[in-house]
Amino acid sequence: MFKSAKRALSLAAGVAIGLSAASSAWSASSLEQVMKERGLTQKDVLAAAKTYVPTGGRDEYLVFSSGGQSGQVIVYGIPSMRILKYIAVFTPEPWQGYGFDEESKAVLAQGRINGKDIKFGDTHHPALSETKGDYNGKYLFINDKNNPRIAVIDLHDFETKQIVVNPIMKSEHGGAFVTPNTEYIIEASQYAGPLTDEFVPLEDFNDKYRGAVTYWKFDMKEGRIKPEQSFSIELPPYSQDLSDAGKGPSYGWSFTNSFCSERYVGGIERGRPPFEAGCSSKDTDFLHVINWKKAAELVKAGKAKTINGHKVLSIKTAVDNGILYLVPEPKSPHGVDVSPDGKFMIVSGKLDSHTWVYSFDKIMKAAKAKKFEGKDPYGIPIIAMKDALHTQVNVGLGPLHTQYDSKKCIVYTSIYVDSMVTKWNYCTGKVLDQMPIHYNIGHLMAMEGDTVSPDGKYLVALNKLAIDRFNPVGPLHPQNHQLIDISGDKMQLLYDMPLPLGEPHYAVAIKADKLKPAIRYRSGWNSREDKRSPYKARAGREKIVRSPGKVEVFGTLIRSHINPEILEVTEGDEVIIHLTNLERAQDETHGFAMRGGNVNLSVEPGKTATARFIADKAGVYPYYCTEFCSALHLEMQGYMLVQPKGYKAKASGMKEGVKYTEADYKKQVKTNLDTQAVIDSVVAFITSHNYKDFPTVVALVEDATDQLGFAAEAKKKSEAAAARKDWQNAMLWANQWWQYQVKTADMGLRAKTYLEQNGAKKIK
Amino acid sequence: MFKSAKRALSLAAGVAIGLSAASSAWSASSLEQVMKERGLTQKDVLAAAKTYVPTGGRDEYLVFSSGGQSGQVIVYGIPSMRILKYIAVFTPEPWQGYGFDEESKAVLAQGRINGKDIKFGDTHHPALSETKGDYNGKYLFINDKNNPRIAVIDLHDFETKQIVVNPIMKSEHGGAFVTPNTEYIIEASQYAGPLTDEFVPLEDFNDKYRGAVTYWKFDMKEGRIKPEQSFSIELPPYSQDLSDAGKGPSYGWSFTNSFCSERYVGGIERGRPPFEAGCSSKDTDFLHVINWKKAAELVKAGKAKTINGHKVLSIKTAVDNGILYLVPEPKSPHGVDVSPDGKFMIVSGKLDSHTWVYSFDKIMKAAKAKKFEGKDPYGIPIIAMKDALHTQVNVGLGPLHTQYDSKKCIVYTSIYVDSMVTKWNYCTGKVLDQMPIHYNIGHLMAMEGDTVSPDGKYLVALNKLAIDRFNPVGPLHPQNHQLIDISGDKMQLLYDMPLPLGEPHYAVAIKADKLKPAIRYRSGWNSREDKRSPYKARAGREKIVRSPGKVEVFGTLIRSHINPEILEVTEGDEVIIHLTNLERAQDETHGFAMRGGNVNLSVEPGKTATARFIADKAGVYPYYCTEFCSALHLEMQGYMLVQPKGYKAKASGMKEGVKYTEADYKKQVKTNLDTQAVIDSVVAFITSHNYKDFPTVVALVEDATDQLGFAAEAKKKSEAAAARKDWQNAMLWANQWWQYQVKTADMGLRAKTYLEQNGAKKIK
Repeated sequence: MFKSAKRALSLAAGVAIGLSAASSAWSASSLEQVMKERGLTQKDVLAAAKTYVPTGGRDEYLVFSSGGQSGQVIVYGIPSMRILKYIAVFTPEPWQGYGFDEESKAVLAQGRINGKDIKFGDTHHPALSETKGDYNGKYLFINDKNNPRIAVIDLHDFETKQIVVNPIMKSEHGGAFVTPNTEYIIEASQYAGPLTDEFVPLEDFNDKYRGAVTYWKFDMKEGRIKPEQSFSIELPPYSQDLSDAGKGPSYGWSFTNSFCSERYVGGIERGRPPFEAGCSSKDTDFLHVINWKKAAELVKAGKAKTINGHKVLSIKTAVDNGILYLVPEPKSPHGVDVSPDGKFMIVSGKLDSHTWVYSFDKIMKAAKAKKFEGKDPYGIPIIAMKDALHTQVNVGLGPLHTQYDSKKCIVYTSIYVDSMVTKWNYCTGKVLDQMPIHYNIGHLMAMEGDTVSPDGKYLVALNKLAIDRFNPVGPLHPQNHQLIDISGDKMQLLYDMPLPLGEPHYAVAIKADKLKPAIRYRSGWNSREDKRSPYKARAGREKIVRSPGKVEVFGTLIRSHINPEILEVTEGDEVIIHLTNLERAQDETHGFAMRGGNVNLSVEPGKTATARFIADKAGVYPYYCTEFCSALHLEMQGYMLVQPKGYKAKASGMKEGVKYTEADYKKQVKTNLDTQAVIDSVVAFITSHNYKDFPTVVALVEDATDQLGFAAEAKKKSEAAAARKDWQNAMLWANQWWQYQVKTADMGLRAKTYLEQNGAKKIK
Repeated sequence: MFKSAKRALSLAAGVAIGLSAASSAWSASSLEQVMKERGLTQKDVLAAAKTYVPTGGRDEYLVFSSGGQSGQVIVYGIPSMRILKYIAVFTPEPWQGYGFDEESKAVLAQGRINGKDIKFGDTHHPALSETKGDYNGKYLFINDKNNPRIAVIDLHDFETKQIVVNPIMKSEHGGAFVTPNTEYIIEASQYAGPLTDEFVPLEDFNDKYRGAVTYWKFDMKEGRIKPEQSFSIELPPYSQDLSDAGKGPSYGWSFTNSFCSERYVGGIERGRPPFEAGCSSKDTDFLHVINWKKAAELVKAGKAKTINGHKVLSIKTAVDNGILYLVPEPKSPHGVDVSPDGKFMIVSGKLDSHTWVYSFDKIMKAAKAKKFEGKDPYGIPIIAMKDALHTQVNVGLGPLHTQYDSKKCIVYTSIYVDSMVTKWNYCTGKVLDQMPIHYNIGHLMAMEGDTVSPDGKYLVALNKLAIDRFNPVGPLHPQNHQLIDISGDKMQLLYDMPLPLGEPHYAVAIKADKLKPAIRYRSGWNSREDKRSPYKARAGREKIVRSPGKVEVFGTLIRSHINPEILEVTEGDEVIIHLTNLERAQDETHGFAMRGGNVNLSVEPGKTATARFIADKAGVYPYYCTEFCSALHLEMQGYMLVQPKGYKAKASGMKEGVKYTEADYKKQVKTNLDTQAVIDSVVAFITSHNYKDFPTVVALVEDATDQLGFAAEAKKKSEAAAARKDWQNAMLWANQWWQYQVKTADMGLRAKTYLEQNGAKKIK
């Protein structure tokens, strides 16, 4: 009556036949029938075909989207619009163990403000690392608007590695943007504040509040920001906004726009018109034009002052050295976008209906000729609009952000108030197409649309109000990213994608084949520091180290047990548990959670992670693997026993719940021999094929071989116990031997399926 | 050169024309061409057509999936497989303000263990509230395995309302399951422990460790669990697992399975065979058969003892009163699933290849006849397998969980080790179809598949290893939910959906039209307590209340300002900020974040939310709206100024950054009059149509009318200032008047678009 592993194998063979038989069923239900039943138009089916990715297929682009006040980064594929991952950045996230294991807590601790742990961020603008102005697929940077910070995410493992706190800003929106070789990550302030941390009354706003732009030095080799090599430029107390770096002819320069250059301070609670009235009264705000390359030299030459341990070039120094200019721009803009060739910058004002195209060449000519229309109240020379503009184009009410096509001179601008996308030509100034999108669009994004070589193909409208687009899920709605086909003359709406968590602002899309993520860590790895963990343990070398008031565990995780399974500590002990995942197969993550506190780890293959806590209450605390890793996953458990101080252990020992006989032992051994026959047949299949050409299978085979080795050890123990007629241990070890066999078979079957599905060839 | 609002309107008209012109472009690119370019088969296109939901379309079913150790619930649509929301349950989540506002902190505080805040949960099995065994769409329940807890989510607003801590369990996996009228929510323990909180050594495992099943009383009217009316039944120290409630003939009974009925305690670190060996040595474990209805009567009759303030029926009492039986079941099972007619229970053992079908009728007959094969070591009568079984079916290696089709006797079982789904008939015992899925499947779920009237149609395989299914995103993979069409004889794979965050275990799917979520709250609403907040503020009634050491703000949020905009407090003050969102339009959520700490609110229309903190460091703290709510969203800002103790304000007052003239004022007024003409034309369009038939539009019109009222007030202030030749304030208020007009126009245009797209009729 009980399963024989052989039967399982024959079943698997039956499935393969069943599958080919099933295909005839498919042709029976026709496309027309489905269209009729589901009320789809031909257009719908075409859009479906353009976005559907069949099982096991790959998306062409990966998108990294900010998650807004969720504090996370969202990763999804194009064209399928399937979300692949939320990367924990500023907010603790238990599935990833982020903010729970000591290794990631150390990353979050870098982001403390005034010594306080910050449990969220307001992420806005992600930026991918670049080489020669093109994405290199190595790192991702993202800002926190609320507590001015920048985080570094390694695209090798999609983990957050570093958080830096801006030392002088009180608010920030304009990050992250990178220079063409990621020499610097650009971060501009938003709401002005004193550059020091002291209290300064609002009455001194004009005199003592300031904006700034910070250039964070990035070391591509090390993958870390170097705060000591970073610097800032002091700016007037306008609300600086987004930035972009020049490239080609404009390499070495960066551009930062602003709003509220009126320097208005509201106070509706005291009868004053609110910020929104005073911050949008003038027709224009200021685009800041900055030479970051020369600025870096000035800092090196000792021209900077130090504020909070950070180098800051004053407005005066910047002006005196000709590295800072202002140009009027349409009011309340959002986004300055440099053309792929570096010759033009496009700025849109949300309260205007025109997009303004600036010529970098004209700006430089005016600057060199010192042809200014005046200076702002802080002494910064202002280049007249007419001396900087290439053209202005009427694109619709509330233009916001522009992205570049692969086709020369073609751009797309998001139109907030009119809720549409306008396609236009910035060389000729002609509007080519307009497409309504659903409710208010913020940013928009084309494939690699802010690099030196945009890919065209797709555009994503990042819409801020989803309203009636999806099934209702309560007063808090998802946002809506709409995928648009831009390969033809006319834009075509393909897909509406709800964002289930967070409020994305900007996103960047990279060709998927530029990314080479790892599938496992080197054994015993601290992934947050990218180095071997001193707390690594190997199979058979697990240990519990005790010192007064402290218990430190060097343990391991493998299908399907945690070592140690019983952990006895004393009330009040500091408990430190390091766990290394011994698996090598892809996706064989183990988790570790324990009752009573916030002990929760995600330990991917190879990783070593650490939980640390005080065992402050005597009692019984079960722990277990949280990831459904294997058939006996629920049995991957243990107990921490917190003994009262002064507790003396009983000498009674563990009582067995069930007694086993020689017959039990023999029955189990028979099952094991049957199972071994199945394993042998699977092994024969694998080794008779070119499995070594498939890294996924090689990893599976490695792990299967490990398990088979463990099986042999358990077999030995079982036989030794049987020899001394200790049927209890003979049976238990025989069963453990079988458990290892089952895991071997499981991996073997997965490897076999993989080979079959991926066209492996018979080698003899 | 600057925008005229009229031009914006004409642009919008142009878009409508552009759209119809674009449709010809669509027909040009044919389906065949797309298939060729993208390498799609006919089967792929059919699957795409069966799952694609066009813009604005609705999914037929909503799925509520556990998020595993993310501690959240995931909501997605079928057939589109688009994720609509992550509902924050056990883990703080800033986008939702969950764990940041005082109202939701109070919910999380209910889930404290030993006084400690728990910052995550390990959610496993969601359950929808039922009436007569069918989903009623009102509430969702979800468990935390790690710290035994149950949460209540209200499907009116998709928010977590209550968390209860199990008073006697140390571990729990078997929740939540509901009785047919949601009389009780069933929660079974997993790893045994002492029912009290004291330390008990593992040596006393057999004698003093226990399992249990808790029946939480639910009040459907109030939407809350009533702990004082809840009770538990003591069970042996087996690892109890999942449950299901009887219905129809088995109404009043519930079924809970178990593993490790060997009561084996591991200890691999001390040379003992691990848990996995000893917990799977016997061929069978025990299904617990319990009469909860009679148990409730026994509790009422005073037969329970009290542990930790909670009523517990002892094993002896349960046995003596004939409400607790055991039946052998296949070893290490996961899931006991009662048939829609309540006559059968299906159990699968992960280490078996058979699924066992029990007859409730047979079990009752044996119980009545007291025909037992013996008693377990705790005195519970055991009904023999042969006296309980209806049939056993060989379905594949590692069967796990069974779901019911709409067709009589048809079921689907997930097969873990063989990675497939088996369709079979539990009346005839015949296997009908088998479909391979991608790597290890855990639970599976049919539409309303565990109710009295399953819908059939679709099945979702909840796969645990995604391995090579998606673009790689590092060592931690998404999981994979595969959508399967079960409408025909053969199962057909439709879609692979990555889960970007969390590790789902079980999910439930409800017909979407059974849900009636709200789109806004009643004004000034505490959503977590479902009642009017005492801290609500109305427009114009905002106030700041000061007492020694404390500042309490009763403020408001509306496009596009926060009231108050300036908040002066003294170092060391306790600051409490209550904010009410005055909006009524759908999706007009405002956020509120402030630098320096963890101040972060999500305030949906109508909601009142509270931030509370100590202003412990003098300085400047900008705050702002985190949701991109309007064109001047970035200007929706303010400053908290923390003054040093003893600070005396300067008498100088605010200095204006820009001075305005009569000409500025007049220019603004001209713009405003032009804008008013546009608004009038939009209003004329709306009122000439049957807009009152569209609740979405009515809400927009309400809010637009509010904004127009505010515009009139600002106009008055502007004119009063102009009358006294105060051009500064005349200009600023004129601009504020225009800001209100822009918002009116924005909402008006959205309303107009909605009416056009939803077939509104002209009424005169």
